[in-house]
Amino acid sequence: MSVKVDYKSAGVDIEAGNEAVRRMKSHVVKTHSKAVLTGLGSFGTMYSLGDALRGMSDPVMVQSTDGVGTKTKVTVMAAEAAAAAGGDAGKYYELLGHDLVAAVAGDIAVMGARPLTFLDYLGVHKVEPEIIERLVKGMSEACAEAGIALVGGETAEMPAVYAEGELDVVGFVTGVVERAKVITGAEIVEGDVLYGVGSTGLHTNGWSLARKLLFAMNGSAIDAPMEELGGKTLADVLLVPHGNYVKPIERALDAGVAIKGMAHITGGGLVENVPRVLPKGMGAVIDMKSWTPPPIFGLMQRLGSIDAVEMNRAFNMGVGLVVIGAAGLKNELAETMKPFAVWELGVVKAGVEGVVLDGVSA
Amino acid sequence: MSVKVDYKSAGVDIEAGNEAVRRMKSHVVKTHSKAVLTGLGSFGTMYSLGDALRGMSDPVMVQSTDGVGTKTKVTVMAAEAAAAAGGDAGKYYELLGHDLVAAVAGDIAVMGARPLTFLDYLGVHKVEPEIIERLVKGMSEACAEAGIALVGGETAEMPAVYAEGELDVVGFVTGVVERAKVITGAEIVEGDVLYGVGSTGLHTNGWSLARKLLFAMNGSAIDAPMEELGGKTLADVLLVPHGNYVKPIERALDAGVAIKGMAHITGGGLVENVPRVLPKGMGAVIDMKSWTPPPIFGLMQRLGSIDAVEMNRAFNMGVGLVVIGAAGLKNELAETMKPFAVWELGVVKAGVEGVVLDGVSA
Repeated sequence: MSVKVDYKSAGVDIEAGNEAVRRMKSHVVKTHSKAVLTGLGSFGTMYSLGDALRGMSDPVMVQSTDGVGTKTKVTVMAAEAAAAAGGDAGKYYELLGHDLVAAVAGDIAVMGARPLTFLDYLGVHKVEPEIIERLVKGMSEACAEAGIALVGGETAEMPAVYAEGELDVVGFVTGVVERAKVITGAEIVEGDVLYGVGSTGLHTNGWSLARKLLFAMNGSAIDAPMEELGGKTLADVLLVPHGNYVKPIERALDAGVAIKGMAHITGGGLVENVPRVLPKGMGAVIDMKSWTPPPIFGLMQRLGSIDAVEMNRAFNMGVGLVVIGAAGLKNELAETMKPFAVWELGVVKAGVEGVVLDGVSA
Repeated sequence: MSVKVDYKSAGVDIEAGNEAVRRMKSHVVKTHSKAVLTGLGSFGTMYSLGDALRGMSDPVMVQSTDGVGTKTKVTVMAAEAAAAAGGDAGKYYELLGHDLVAAVAGDIAVMGARPLTFLDYLGVHKVEPEIIERLVKGMSEACAEAGIALVGGETAEMPAVYAEGELDVVGFVTGVVERAKVITGAEIVEGDVLYGVGSTGLHTNGWSLARKLLFAMNGSAIDAPMEELGGKTLADVLLVPHGNYVKPIERALDAGVAIKGMAHITGGGLVENVPRVLPKGMGAVIDMKSWTPPPIFGLMQRLGSIDAVEMNRAFNMGVGLVVIGAAGLKNELAETMKPFAVWELGVVKAGVEGVVLDGVSA
């Protein structure tokens, strides 16, 4: 046998991987406090828990993992369109990095935990060091904004698993909270108010449906201004990163706002996520006239003739977070949750099953 | 517009996802100690740190994330061949679940950390509840064996990102260790011995190359007995899960074996992983005659006419773990590391750059 095979010819470019690692280091270290004990080279990452645990008598570790769904595909579309037009394709990967951190960290922030560390896994068809760098730059910025250390990650090049040009981005977040301070929703009672906190758009859920409606069915161009979107492009509107609620939630808790429960409005929308924090026997009535969903949602609804209940199950409809507490917290929440809008979204009601969308004809 | 679009027609089967969740629960709960405070439904998972931190004055959290590379593709091949022959296709997904846990948890065990929690992310072309269940069953078994709680995870169906029939499996492990007990390799001195601990096969690295050699170039059938493999099939040999070193390492540490450093032999093989634990100015001379790599490695080497250095960079060659300490620890290690073989693999030498493969002509 005369052919000689090495790793690169088998479809894995180790040198590109090494370059990606070199490029990401300068971004990652900006997220490191003195609690981070190692660089990128160890088998595992090390984070000193001393400061985070100080004063806790019964610490609970809270963790979550998630990806951003097929928002990656829209990112790739926007980047390709930008590249074709001579623009900065990489900025969309930065936005995706922001998305990943905000989406995953939000899941533990709503339980009252302070996120400490983040690790990422990037699965790609092909390692493009520039793309990896911009992704990690975005993740690092979002981590720094939220006070999280980006301690490690893995980039895997798997041309046979990921479709050409595609990638998946996965995040893992870990935080701690004193057990007595876990926000469980157990103290929620009838008459408590649901405060809506604005989303920045679709966040990271509903993308398969959104892509079908906007691109497969309607054939919209991602980079053309659209009248229905006030002259913005789909790239402008769709790729705004997930709201980063970590610091706003921390500010509210530090200010002593009496939050009884929080629901992160992710897959399943208001309909499926609000009940996750309600005590047994309690439901919620949501006043659908209390806010106006951003135009992108109405556009998608029209394109697919989708009924309102299905829309509210597939998308967040402009509500990124629901905070539940007694009446009268709106001003405190609005102050601490800036820049996100806060409004009275609905009320908790005994004997109601799940979520009632008041003002919707299904 | 008359067509009505729902989530399933957009390519995401929520019901299949819900069934997968129902199926996995019975397996996952078997890994739960009383430290696990929530089920699968919360926004984040909760793990009480009290017991794990007891007696620690300066706890360090150690974490790692990784996948299993394109071993997934070989798993799919073997499962399809088994299904075609009327056999149990799912068992290969169970094995893959074992792989993922052992591969990722090993990365923090070698630093002296006790792994506490594991989260998984399964990215799939299509959710097949039976496959997800068997994957999670395997992960649960490997977690239980290692004393780890499988606290949560995410399964994402992304037909547009993952190639048809493909999947990626990603794990995330978290453990703790008293800072003074972190195993860093800093105390390694010249003359210390490298003890090899046997691997169970390729583990989770080198799969793109292995697939090219065995299947793309040689056209081997995955389910046909091969003379070079002592009559075993490639599925038999390739899909043995990654050695689960967590408990063996704990036993060695609990027994007081004076381990100064440990290298998990992952991507880059002995050549790249051993130097990660050696102090500056120290290298290692490995006696290539001290062990006989399993036949699968020789088979691949012949098929690709690959030189020995490249082989040792792409594959673990039968060494899953290297433990470094003073001379004379072999019997203690052999006792505590059972069922894995332990032997004297080489020595630490000052002034040597990296790893010298003694007995290899490059």
